[in-house]
Amino acid sequence: MTTVTIAILCGLLAVVYGIVTSQQVLRASPGNERMQDIAAAIQEGAKAYLGRQYTTIAIVGVIVAVILFATLGTLSTVGFLIGAILSGVAGYVGMNISVRANVRTAEAARTSLQGGLTMAFRSGAVTGMLVAGLGLLAIAGFFWYLTGPAGYAPNARAIVEALTALAFGASLISIFARLGGGIFTKAADVGADLVGKVEAGIPEDDPRNPAVIADNVGDNVGDCAGMAADLFETYVVTLGVTMISIALLIQASPGELMNLMSLPLIVGGVCIVTSIIGTYMVRLGSKGSIMGALYKGFWTSALLAIPAIYVATQMTLGDLNAPIGAAGFLDAPSDGVASGLGDLAATDVTGAPSADAFTGMDLFWCMLIGLAVTGLIVWITEYYTGTNYRPVKSIAKASETGHGTNVIQGLAISLEATALPTLVIVVAVVATYKLAGVIGIAFAATAMLALAGMVVALDAYGPVTDNAGGIAEMAGLDDEVRHKTDALDAVGNTTKAVTKGYAIGSAGLAALVLFGAYTTDLQTYFPDIQVDFSLSNPYVIVGLLLGALLPYLFGAFGMTAVGRAAGAVVEEVRDQFRNNPGIMQGTSRPNYGRTVDLVTRAAIKEMIIPSLLPVLSPIALYFIVTAVDGQASGFAALGAMLLGVIVSGLFVALSMTSGGGAWDNAKKYIEDGNHGGKGSDAHKAAVTGDTVGDPYKDTAGPAVNPMIKITNIVALLLLAALAGGAG
Amino acid sequence: MTTVTIAILCGLLAVVYGIVTSQQVLRASPGNERMQDIAAAIQEGAKAYLGRQYTTIAIVGVIVAVILFATLGTLSTVGFLIGAILSGVAGYVGMNISVRANVRTAEAARTSLQGGLTMAFRSGAVTGMLVAGLGLLAIAGFFWYLTGPAGYAPNARAIVEALTALAFGASLISIFARLGGGIFTKAADVGADLVGKVEAGIPEDDPRNPAVIADNVGDNVGDCAGMAADLFETYVVTLGVTMISIALLIQASPGELMNLMSLPLIVGGVCIVTSIIGTYMVRLGSKGSIMGALYKGFWTSALLAIPAIYVATQMTLGDLNAPIGAAGFLDAPSDGVASGLGDLAATDVTGAPSADAFTGMDLFWCMLIGLAVTGLIVWITEYYTGTNYRPVKSIAKASETGHGTNVIQGLAISLEATALPTLVIVVAVVATYKLAGVIGIAFAATAMLALAGMVVALDAYGPVTDNAGGIAEMAGLDDEVRHKTDALDAVGNTTKAVTKGYAIGSAGLAALVLFGAYTTDLQTYFPDIQVDFSLSNPYVIVGLLLGALLPYLFGAFGMTAVGRAAGAVVEEVRDQFRNNPGIMQGTSRPNYGRTVDLVTRAAIKEMIIPSLLPVLSPIALYFIVTAVDGQASGFAALGAMLLGVIVSGLFVALSMTSGGGAWDNAKKYIEDGNHGGKGSDAHKAAVTGDTVGDPYKDTAGPAVNPMIKITNIVALLLLAALAGGAG
Repeated sequence: MTTVTIAILCGLLAVVYGIVTSQQVLRASPGNERMQDIAAAIQEGAKAYLGRQYTTIAIVGVIVAVILFATLGTLSTVGFLIGAILSGVAGYVGMNISVRANVRTAEAARTSLQGGLTMAFRSGAVTGMLVAGLGLLAIAGFFWYLTGPAGYAPNARAIVEALTALAFGASLISIFARLGGGIFTKAADVGADLVGKVEAGIPEDDPRNPAVIADNVGDNVGDCAGMAADLFETYVVTLGVTMISIALLIQASPGELMNLMSLPLIVGGVCIVTSIIGTYMVRLGSKGSIMGALYKGFWTSALLAIPAIYVATQMTLGDLNAPIGAAGFLDAPSDGVASGLGDLAATDVTGAPSADAFTGMDLFWCMLIGLAVTGLIVWITEYYTGTNYRPVKSIAKASETGHGTNVIQGLAISLEATALPTLVIVVAVVATYKLAGVIGIAFAATAMLALAGMVVALDAYGPVTDNAGGIAEMAGLDDEVRHKTDALDAVGNTTKAVTKGYAIGSAGLAALVLFGAYTTDLQTYFPDIQVDFSLSNPYVIVGLLLGALLPYLFGAFGMTAVGRAAGAVVEEVRDQFRNNPGIMQGTSRPNYGRTVDLVTRAAIKEMIIPSLLPVLSPIALYFIVTAVDGQASGFAALGAMLLGVIVSGLFVALSMTSGGGAWDNAKKYIEDGNHGGKGSDAHKAAVTGDTVGDPYKDTAGPAVNPMIKITNIVALLLLAALAGGAG
Repeated sequence: MTTVTIAILCGLLAVVYGIVTSQQVLRASPGNERMQDIAAAIQEGAKAYLGRQYTTIAIVGVIVAVILFATLGTLSTVGFLIGAILSGVAGYVGMNISVRANVRTAEAARTSLQGGLTMAFRSGAVTGMLVAGLGLLAIAGFFWYLTGPAGYAPNARAIVEALTALAFGASLISIFARLGGGIFTKAADVGADLVGKVEAGIPEDDPRNPAVIADNVGDNVGDCAGMAADLFETYVVTLGVTMISIALLIQASPGELMNLMSLPLIVGGVCIVTSIIGTYMVRLGSKGSIMGALYKGFWTSALLAIPAIYVATQMTLGDLNAPIGAAGFLDAPSDGVASGLGDLAATDVTGAPSADAFTGMDLFWCMLIGLAVTGLIVWITEYYTGTNYRPVKSIAKASETGHGTNVIQGLAISLEATALPTLVIVVAVVATYKLAGVIGIAFAATAMLALAGMVVALDAYGPVTDNAGGIAEMAGLDDEVRHKTDALDAVGNTTKAVTKGYAIGSAGLAALVLFGAYTTDLQTYFPDIQVDFSLSNPYVIVGLLLGALLPYLFGAFGMTAVGRAAGAVVEEVRDQFRNNPGIMQGTSRPNYGRTVDLVTRAAIKEMIIPSLLPVLSPIALYFIVTAVDGQASGFAALGAMLLGVIVSGLFVALSMTSGGGAWDNAKKYIEDGNHGGKGSDAHKAAVTGDTVGDPYKDTAGPAVNPMIKITNIVALLLLAALAGGAG
């Protein structure tokens, strides 16, 4: 049995886990009739939204597929479709279990906290394992077909292009899903809060609020389906670009290449197994700490991953101390000036890719560093968004002096929160690069993503508990139930922030790898064009500046869209209150469907232009600069844009997601009775901060991650298309 | 008479203008006794603060001077001291006239709007002309001494180092002054608003508020003295780096070099003359538009600058169509791959600087582009911060649905406002580079800064009118007077935003020039070390990421400092109200001095650590990376940090300054009677937005500009120090 086959089996195992666990969830009691009614309304709304979203994306997808077919041929088109369809499936199935687990979590929480936790976490684990499993199946299965039945050499251009197209499919879906879902969820949330809590003076999740179902639908289509598509994309792109880099950079025999290219797949595979084991460790301890229970699962997966990765690496590569590839093809470590990828700069006109010598053991160390980065990002994110530490407490304290100081302190924290993750990423880049060059960085990113199943499980658990709380409120269950779901939900704020930091952190690591793939591709396709990527080339500055602009412009679009759509929700709800006074008296039922429909239309409309920004910008930049100053300048500007978008996107995304999480938990900290508690002036100020943080952390911030990837992948595809494609 | 002598005379003319105009201002009536009392309190507070600030800076300055003397010798130390002292003088004198013009403006506004406008603008013009005049005198005088009595060749290393040290002196003062003044003004402003308007329910500038004098002091030490030091720095660094680049990049006879290096000086000189003419055009037209009156002055200066620069260029260079420098020394335009500075990349081991051929006419076009950039930035800034356009109106509209949506929309606008200036800068970089390489970019930046006298005049006018309004309020003058000063003040919001956009825009242009100076210096000092500045070098990525982090961390410090100091003001004022109930009844006078003293101590304490961040970061990065992977990597990371700080700093600064201006004017727009007017819920939300925007636009955002420069200049000095210094 080959390594790739084992990886495929691990992917299938994840899918089986998903099916079995789904059955367990579905077998649980869905509660009383009222609860089921509410859940049905949420299901219906979520289904309707996703149906419309996927229809719209399908139109864009078909257009893109036709362009790909015309420029790059059949294989790339097939790759694109696999990536796109499986990304959609991961989101759709995740949403489907989530909208069924919510009501069952509420029901289970009637009995015990552990019961609610188990139900919500199982649902999250289904989504998590499907993301990792389908991601692995997509890439391993396609690679198996290409190198097996289709008969390509592992480093054939066709494989590189097809894998790139697969990543593109996943990315394209994910940017639409992340942004559309993000606009939906926050427009509904902000709109419902403004008109309900602030204007009408009714509590959150009050059934009299016509936007309440839309708010709960949003949790599922944004925080569950959108997030799942995003992480599916991150998984596929990271593993894919690692394989592509190996194909492009390492010169070795086909057998050795095959082994090395299978390594990311088997690492992903064994970590699915450790993640599944981890899911069974999520249990409340004697102290009843929910975060502690979730951490038990996470740390089990992460610690078991260390020996698992070691064994997988040794089985795949054999002697871990032998240099990778045939010795003759590898440069000895160079003079320390520009080692590794530096040797591949376009001034190297020999066209022969090369890399410093490294061993399997070096790769293992790089993967350990990747796991360490994941652990550190979890820790840093908890520090910045947890209620026990200085940042959140400082925002809560600043709320005492009003709305303004709350927002000022929140912005200060959001700016500050970028520092430690950046330092971690920088140290990891240097350390892994010194161990094994660009390939080392790629494997660190791969190891990070290998834990995606567990990380997504922790994240997808959040919206289920959020929904469960809403259902408990609307169905008039005991306050005790709501207390339990609130406790479960508070932890969800931190785990949600963790996933975003993790995804963007891995993007920071992958940036250099993607850029390496770009320069190597360039050299292969256009050996005669010398591209100067030096910082003293003004077109490099131009590319860096315009790349850095993209996350800002994208963020502006996302924030404006939420503000506009939330305003529309406010108008709609005011209208229902005005025309049907029975709603507020509780004698007649509001028209939930009309609000869901309104938010659906708004989100779909608003997601299109910003999603196309990262697709079209690199293409436009290349053609404009080439027209002004030739192809070499065009390629230089385009390459620099790829780094500009990560250099600025990393900070925009980290600051928005951490800041938003901190604002949210500062509000919760006050609601726990600090600084005057619920209803105090400090609480009102904290509600403002939370509202500001909502589109920051759930719309604009997280969508920056797929935006960065898509810019990079479009650039790679553009190169292939300009060169005529391989098939 | 040489060109340099004429430039010196123009600088003296500016100083004479300053003295004469000061006399005119001081001859005007300072109003009644009550007004003079209040003005005296403001004067005293401002003097006390600046005295303390400069004492603190002097301690840092002496330490730095000793280090410079030990590493780079006498000339550099003298240059540093000239830059530092004159920067301090520009700020101090500007503040001094400002705190005398405020009361006279209030008095003049009793008679007519034109009277108030004239008085306030004259005071601003004194500051403006002193900034440009002293800046020009510093650099031209020092250059005259070095090339004349001291007998150095114009491109001697000693001159390059001495000019760099001069720029460093100006930058070091300016970052302390900008940040310290920024913290002072906004801590007092936010604190006074929170405890006065919000808690005690008394209007702005009410004499019963113990923080009211501190608030007015802040306008002078932050918006006047701090801004003046900042623009002095920008002026000196821009002209200085243009001269340094010529010395480093152009190989020509000493006479030709002397001419070319004098050109930035004479351009600065003639634009002082056109700016002085412009100041006399500031008069209200028949429509009574204040902005129109100020624009008349600005456009007169800018349009007259075109022929003035043309004549100056022709007189200095002679035949405008002859190639610059002796033909033999200049490369023909290269193959379009990496022209100009690209040829200077460290891989060029010949060590011979070179540049593409360009003519005097090319330089003239580059300067025209610089003027055009200035005009476009003025226009874009007015669009984003003026009350007549979509951005401000959209924030005002969003205020209707609450504090949260106001802040969300403001943040969206702040993100969006970075796009057009970036595009303008990018187009200017490409166009000027194609005309005359890096030297072309440098001359575009020089032409931008040549108008500094006029731009600073427009900006420094603002705090005078703001103070005049405060004095009118406190002295109980007619409401009519306050209406006039309010009208004058509203325009000041836009002119303040313009200056910041202008300063950061010029920094964007100068970035490549500074980086060019760095690479050329590197090549000269360390010809044996090959530094790889390619984007595929991981240390370049590390430098870019850490450079990009600096503005975020710096912004976090600035925002936190304002929040903390404003909180202290709130406590202090509450304490005074509690212990002396007579204050609120109007029977006893609050202790203004104690609040001023508190804010002074807080601002001084808070400014030190963040100001040292850009000084120490490049040094730390160089030594750490060198220890890890050798000097070549250290130099690569350091170089990349210089660009990272501009790539991210440009966006942070533009978004903060534009966003803050837009929030402020959205509040004013509502106060003008829109969306419910003063006292409405929309107005309350807009006040929150304004409070958030305060530290954005007046503390963190503007201080990013000197921060970028100082990082770059420290790197240049570090290179010189590592190489042992030239004298």
